[in-house]
Amino acid sequence: MKYKLTIAYVGTDYVGWQVQPEGESIQGLIEKALSKLFRTEIRVIGASRTDSGVHALGQTAHFRGNTDLTVEELHFRLNLILPKSIRILKIEEVDESFHAQMSASSKIYHYHIWLDPVEDPFLLPFRARIFRPLDLEKMERASSLFLGTHDFSAFANAGSSAKSFIRTLFRVDIVKQAGGIRIEFEGNSFLYKMVRNIVGMLLEIGYGRREPDDINKIFSSKDRKLAPPPAPPQGLFLMRVDYK
Amino acid sequence: MKYKLTIAYVGTDYVGWQVQPEGESIQGLIEKALSKLFRTEIRVIGASRTDSGVHALGQTAHFRGNTDLTVEELHFRLNLILPKSIRILKIEEVDESFHAQMSASSKIYHYHIWLDPVEDPFLLPFRARIFRPLDLEKMERASSLFLGTHDFSAFANAGSSAKSFIRTLFRVDIVKQAGGIRIEFEGNSFLYKMVRNIVGMLLEIGYGRREPDDINKIFSSKDRKLAPPPAPPQGLFLMRVDYK
Repeated sequence: MKYKLTIAYVGTDYVGWQVQPEGESIQGLIEKALSKLFRTEIRVIGASRTDSGVHALGQTAHFRGNTDLTVEELHFRLNLILPKSIRILKIEEVDESFHAQMSASSKIYHYHIWLDPVEDPFLLPFRARIFRPLDLEKMERASSLFLGTHDFSAFANAGSSAKSFIRTLFRVDIVKQAGGIRIEFEGNSFLYKMVRNIVGMLLEIGYGRREPDDINKIFSSKDRKLAPPPAPPQGLFLMRVDYK
Repeated sequence: MKYKLTIAYVGTDYVGWQVQPEGESIQGLIEKALSKLFRTEIRVIGASRTDSGVHALGQTAHFRGNTDLTVEELHFRLNLILPKSIRILKIEEVDESFHAQMSASSKIYHYHIWLDPVEDPFLLPFRARIFRPLDLEKMERASSLFLGTHDFSAFANAGSSAKSFIRTLFRVDIVKQAGGIRIEFEGNSFLYKMVRNIVGMLLEIGYGRREPDDINKIFSSKDRKLAPPPAPPQGLFLMRVDYK
């Protein structure tokens, strides 16, 4: 039987989604819990390889296994074993053809930035705290230049297993919210650290250290070294993975 | 000069507001930070002695000190020294007659309860997680019996420095919210563990183990042992302290 998981997690204390030689990963903890329930080694494939410190409200994953437990029982027991910072929101039986990563048609990420001098201690762990004023108009102009289909090589860190660096962004919106802004990204697929690298570029433009026009030059160069460093992980949330 | 502070904190990792023989307290950390800035020992008086694990979005406090720093400079430097889980929201100069605790005319507390089988890992640390179904209608009926002026002896834990146990509650509202409910309390003043003890009683009524009618009997008894144990601390937020 093949199952699909929808997962939320607080990424703060983990080395990221993917199993690493050291430290606890979300994938590793879910595999351990499932292997216990299924009494055999279970391998879990996630839709997105979120980095250390990155959060999720709608990560998805799939795995194969045989059990007499109903999905309701599986759901309940899985959450009982997992730490409280990782919660299985949903578990469903899916077709053999379903693949959490390959079948995904689009993903939504939100990046949260705190700007207000008055700080909310409950939200700060989930925000990039920016102390300098940002030119939001310039950032909005810049964000539209990322829309559409581009070779994102200059905005992808090494470590990606991707063969092509061409990706399509459907939406990049800067939305005002309590204490600052969030930048919403929707695209067909994302490269390693791509969202944080784009936010890093938008911040440099917001500070006035780079211009929106630089984006197309950086795209053409395909050179990661010409783009600024990534924005910090704690502001990033994987919100949703959609399937056709 | 006398100053008023408005403070927000995540109570999870602290022994509570008040300085204790062991462990870090919010009061202790603010006193340490202020003593550093004023280069002399500063004593801080809080409006509410929130317990270990209890949170605040609007605690207030006062202290006396002399400095050449403006309130803006004080505010900025204080937050720079304090851990990120404690944030000074506001600092104001006040009259010599102002007393954070004695001058308070009312306080608002919210108690958050999570009921939904689907759990949000970002909110769970700030909720009491209840797995049994609750009879909300009965709880609402019961909550109205706490309104008005009563001798709250049976709902106050030992450790209170209060001389009188008579208090007035202006408002006890059960409000539905994402994932469960919150119970909002507004009163002129609260005894030690009073909110958590009232919530403990409301939960027992919600489970069907006690009846709303028991409340008046417990009030009359003035016996703490006749009322149920307090609800856990992590669901409780001090929201606001008002002054005339």
